[in-house]
Amino acid sequence: MKPIQNNNYKVYFDNSLNTLTEVLAQKNYSKVFILTDEVTGELCLPVLREKLPDLDNFDLIEVPNGEENKNIDFCIGIWRTLLDFEADRNAILINLGGGVVTDMGSFAASTFKRGIDFLQIPTTLLSQVDASVGGKTGIDMDDVKNIIGTFAQPQAVIISTDFLKTLSDRQMTSGFAEVIKHGIIADENFFNEVAVLDNAREVSEAQIYHSVHIKNVVVTEDPYERGLRKTLNYGHTIGHAVESWSLSNEKNPLLHGEAIAIGMICEAYLAHKLAGLSADDLEVISQTFLKFYGKYEIRGGIERALLEVMKNDKKNTAGKISFSLPDKIGHCLFDIFVEENLILEGLDYYRGLSR
Amino acid sequence: MKPIQNNNYKVYFDNSLNTLTEVLAQKNYSKVFILTDEVTGELCLPVLREKLPDLDNFDLIEVPNGEENKNIDFCIGIWRTLLDFEADRNAILINLGGGVVTDMGSFAASTFKRGIDFLQIPTTLLSQVDASVGGKTGIDMDDVKNIIGTFAQPQAVIISTDFLKTLSDRQMTSGFAEVIKHGIIADENFFNEVAVLDNAREVSEAQIYHSVHIKNVVVTEDPYERGLRKTLNYGHTIGHAVESWSLSNEKNPLLHGEAIAIGMICEAYLAHKLAGLSADDLEVISQTFLKFYGKYEIRGGIERALLEVMKNDKKNTAGKISFSLPDKIGHCLFDIFVEENLILEGLDYYRGLSR
Repeated sequence: MKPIQNNNYKVYFDNSLNTLTEVLAQKNYSKVFILTDEVTGELCLPVLREKLPDLDNFDLIEVPNGEENKNIDFCIGIWRTLLDFEADRNAILINLGGGVVTDMGSFAASTFKRGIDFLQIPTTLLSQVDASVGGKTGIDMDDVKNIIGTFAQPQAVIISTDFLKTLSDRQMTSGFAEVIKHGIIADENFFNEVAVLDNAREVSEAQIYHSVHIKNVVVTEDPYERGLRKTLNYGHTIGHAVESWSLSNEKNPLLHGEAIAIGMICEAYLAHKLAGLSADDLEVISQTFLKFYGKYEIRGGIERALLEVMKNDKKNTAGKISFSLPDKIGHCLFDIFVEENLILEGLDYYRGLSR
Repeated sequence: MKPIQNNNYKVYFDNSLNTLTEVLAQKNYSKVFILTDEVTGELCLPVLREKLPDLDNFDLIEVPNGEENKNIDFCIGIWRTLLDFEADRNAILINLGGGVVTDMGSFAASTFKRGIDFLQIPTTLLSQVDASVGGKTGIDMDDVKNIIGTFAQPQAVIISTDFLKTLSDRQMTSGFAEVIKHGIIADENFFNEVAVLDNAREVSEAQIYHSVHIKNVVVTEDPYERGLRKTLNYGHTIGHAVESWSLSNEKNPLLHGEAIAIGMICEAYLAHKLAGLSADDLEVISQTFLKFYGKYEIRGGIERALLEVMKNDKKNTAGKISFSLPDKIGHCLFDIFVEENLILEGLDYYRGLSR
C-alpha cells in the first residue's frame, strides 16, 4: 500500500516492518530507544525483534499499561531513563504501543533536550487510526485528558495490522469507534461500509487505511486545530467526560472508544436539535453504536460532575462548552456552543434508548 | 527606543510598561495570569500594578525564588493552577521575573493545552539580556540545566530597566557576564566598551539594548541552534558544569553569571590552544572577568564530576564534549570537540591565575 503523506512525514502500512530499518538508516542516530508498555513489551517487541534481527542495539524503556499511567510521573521516568542512558540530540525514541505509549512517548521526546526524533509504531486499532497521525502529543493530569502536551511531528508512522492479532475483542471494538467516527464526520459511503460489519474484527486493512487517510486529510489541512480539525472531536466532549468519570469511579472503567461511542450518540442528539441532523440519521447513528457497544448505564446524579469535566475541555473558550456536530452522516460542523440543559437532554436521550 | 524585531515578536524597551496594555489589547484574552517568584511578587508586581491600574483582573501564580526550584514539581504547580483557575486556550501567562520565572513559565505555557500565549517581562539583567530572547523554554532535572524544554515564541518581551534597581549588586554582576559574552563572541568594540566599566551597575540602558540586539541577530538567523546560535554557548559547557556542582554542593552556590564567567576563562584557554585566540586576547578576557568576579576556588578532586556533567550537555553528540570557542575577541567558532585532558588543563589554567 502506498504510504499516506502528511506535511512532514509518511504513514507506512508495512507488516514486514522493513520500513523501520529504512527510516533509521536515513539519519545517523547516536542511540535508539524503544518505549513499550508491559503488554506490547511482551507481545509486540518479540515480533519486531524477529523481523528485524539487525536491530539489536537499543535501550528499552517500559511503562505500565493503561490510561491511568499516561501521567507526568511516568513521563519523568522516561526523561530520566533517556538522561541516564545518555540520549543526545541525535537519539531517536521508537514508541511501540497503544495511545498511552505513542502520546506520552512523543510528548517526552518532543521536550527532551527541546526535542529529539521519535517514530510511532501504533499497535492497537485505536492508536493506528487515531493517535498515530496528526502530531498531537500529550499526557493527562488530574483526570483531564491530554491537558499537557505539544504539537510535534514524528519521523514516520509505521502501521502493521499484524499487531492487531494481539488485541482482545474489547480493545479491537474500542478502536473501531474512531473508524466509524471518520465515516460520520467525513465520508457517508465509508460509514455505510463499516456500519454493516458484524463486529470490529471484520475491519479490513483497506478500511483501516481509508480511516487513516480521512484523518490525515483533515490534520494536514489544519494541523493546529483552528478549524476543520475540530470535527475530529465529534463525540469527544461528552465522551471524554464519561471516560474520565469512569476512570475515577469504576473498577473496570470504559475504554476510550467505548466512551466515545456513548459521546457520539449523545452528541448526535445535540446535532439533531442544533445542527440539522435528520431524525433518520440520528436513529442510524444510535443503532449502529448500540449494535457494537451495547448499552452503558450512565449513573444518575453524575451529570454535574460530567459538566464540570466538559468545562475543562481544551476546545472551550470563556467557560462555554463547545461541540463538533454532524449536520448529516458524512459531514460535520464545529464551534457550536451548547447550553447545559440541552447537554443533559442528550444524556437522557441515551438513557432512553433501546435496540 | 525602537523595539527589537525578532521573527515572531518584538522586544520592547519600555519603563512605562504601557506596551503591556497594548499587547494585551491585541487579542481578546479570556484570562490573564501573572507568574512571579517571592521576590518579584514583592518588589516588581507592585510597580506593574501602579503603572497599570487598569490591569486588575488577573490571577497570580507564585513560585519560590532560586534556580533549584526551576524543576518539574513547580512546573506541575503552575499547570495545576492554570487548570484550577480554568485557563482556556485563549488565556495568557505573563512571566514577571528572572530566568527561573521566564524559562519555567514559558515551558509551562507552551505545553498547557498544547500551548497558550505567554509574555516575558524579565526583571533581572541576566534574563533581560539572555533568557528573554530566543524562544527557548526549559526546566532542570537531576542537576542538568534546561534538560526538559521546548522552542516557543512569546507574544512580546517587555524590558523595563527600572526593575534592575530591585537587584542586589551580586545579581547585577551575574547578569553582566552575559553582556560581556555578547561582546566577546560578536562585537569587539562593544566588549571594549563594557570591559572598562568599574562595575556592573554602570551598564547603561543603551548597552543593555545593544546586548539584546546582538543576541537577537544570532537567534533570528538560527532559531533552532543548528549553527551560529551555538556561539552563545561560549563559557557555558564548563560554566554549567561548575554551576551544577556548586548548586549541589555549596551552601551559598554560584549564580549563573558567576559560573559562566569562570567557564569563559577556562574556555578562552581552550580557544587559545585550539581556535587561534591570541595570548593577548586570552589575557584580556581572563583579567576582565577576574576584575568583575574575583577568583573562585574550583575545589580539587571534582574534575571527574565536572566532566560527567559536561558529557550530558545538550550540545554534545555521541559522548564527545563540544565547545564554542572565540578565535578572537568579537568572533566565535563552534562545534569544536575537546579532549578531556585539555579540559582539565583549562581548569588548571584558571586555578593558576592571579590579578
